[in-house]
Amino acid sequence: MERPNLQIALDTFDLPTALGPLQKAHQHIDVIEVGTILCLSVGMEAVRIIRSLYPEKTILADVRIAEAGSIISKMAYDAGADWVSVVSGAAPDTAEVVLKEARSRGKDVQIELSDGWTWDMARKWAGLGIQQVITHRSRDAEAKGELSWSQQDIDTVHKLAEMGFKVTVTGGVKPADIPRFGGTPVYIFIAGRAIVKADDPAAAAKAFQDVIEQTYLPQGAV
Amino acid sequence: MERPNLQIALDTFDLPTALGPLQKAHQHIDVIEVGTILCLSVGMEAVRIIRSLYPEKTILADVRIAEAGSIISKMAYDAGADWVSVVSGAAPDTAEVVLKEARSRGKDVQIELSDGWTWDMARKWAGLGIQQVITHRSRDAEAKGELSWSQQDIDTVHKLAEMGFKVTVTGGVKPADIPRFGGTPVYIFIAGRAIVKADDPAAAAKAFQDVIEQTYLPQGAV
Repeated sequence: MERPNLQIALDTFDLPTALGPLQKAHQHIDVIEVGTILCLSVGMEAVRIIRSLYPEKTILADVRIAEAGSIISKMAYDAGADWVSVVSGAAPDTAEVVLKEARSRGKDVQIELSDGWTWDMARKWAGLGIQQVITHRSRDAEAKGELSWSQQDIDTVHKLAEMGFKVTVTGGVKPADIPRFGGTPVYIFIAGRAIVKADDPAAAAKAFQDVIEQTYLPQGAV
Repeated sequence: MERPNLQIALDTFDLPTALGPLQKAHQHIDVIEVGTILCLSVGMEAVRIIRSLYPEKTILADVRIAEAGSIISKMAYDAGADWVSVVSGAAPDTAEVVLKEARSRGKDVQIELSDGWTWDMARKWAGLGIQQVITHRSRDAEAKGELSWSQQDIDTVHKLAEMGFKVTVTGGVKPADIPRFGGTPVYIFIAGRAIVKADDPAAAAKAFQDVIEQTYLPQGAV
């Protein structure tokens, strides 16, 4: 099983608040997410600046495209994003135009599986050629105090991976949550506040990488 | 029947391209929409600048909230927006937190009815106290060359209005489309490129207002 990647979600209201922790933690980060809040607050300048600082990193612009897929994805890719996100409620037409734009540039697309997505929809995306999905607990559900990752969440990851998707897992993930995913083919774990708000963002990111390493250690490699 | 309002959708990639036509047309405009593209491209600075220029106008920040409703709506309201948009695919929890934030500030929320919304969902929003919905043709469906407003579109507006919603109509609306809505309780017509890209944006906006006036003239007022 491939070792999952670690993605930092930058969901601050301004760029300095994001760049401070990012600059400290970046050597332990595989994917930098310019979060929806940061995109909406600062605009694509946030993507351009982060691209200028970390030319080698994979950058996701979490623009959550609902329609106008062609225009918004072009804008994000032009700013330096490698990947953009499309909400699961978007019309298949929208996912299709974004995917086409991505393929023409050697970029990629992620579908965010929000409340209400169905396996029928997932089969449609797979049919279109979508390769990445994001599965998460709603931030608002989280805010309501719901508990950690359930067996159902884990089963969902397995089933999506069996359909051929690379699966990103998000929603307040902490290092202590990761062993629970052992044996589960996760492509990316997203960490947000757990790194960005840490006293020592580099140590916090390294703690994630260490537990990912331990959890996904090839059998017999000890 | 109330006279519908005219909303200008500013969906440019930069602020000057939006402000030029807006400054010419604003006296004929009831609601200024800072479009999703402009929000994502420039960030909330776009809302702040437009608020500073037109302190008396109603401003919609078309941020299309899918989750993190509390944070994104606060950000938009703080920047000067009167209304924010929530996608129909958002969890009811999300619509609820945005509505709560809106009510605490005397602001409002619009639900964007994207492909896949259902009447069951609409009843849920009505139950939560949501007062505004946006009904439209997908921009991507539009790009695929689908024809103008169908009888089904018009019937949908009637049914939503009967449920108590104030209904915004959008999707490449031109003045010639408006008489078709005669007798239909539309709260807002959105015009985008038809004003923003016009040689004479003021005349283009006035043409909308004139046809709205003629279409919704009280009977016997001639």
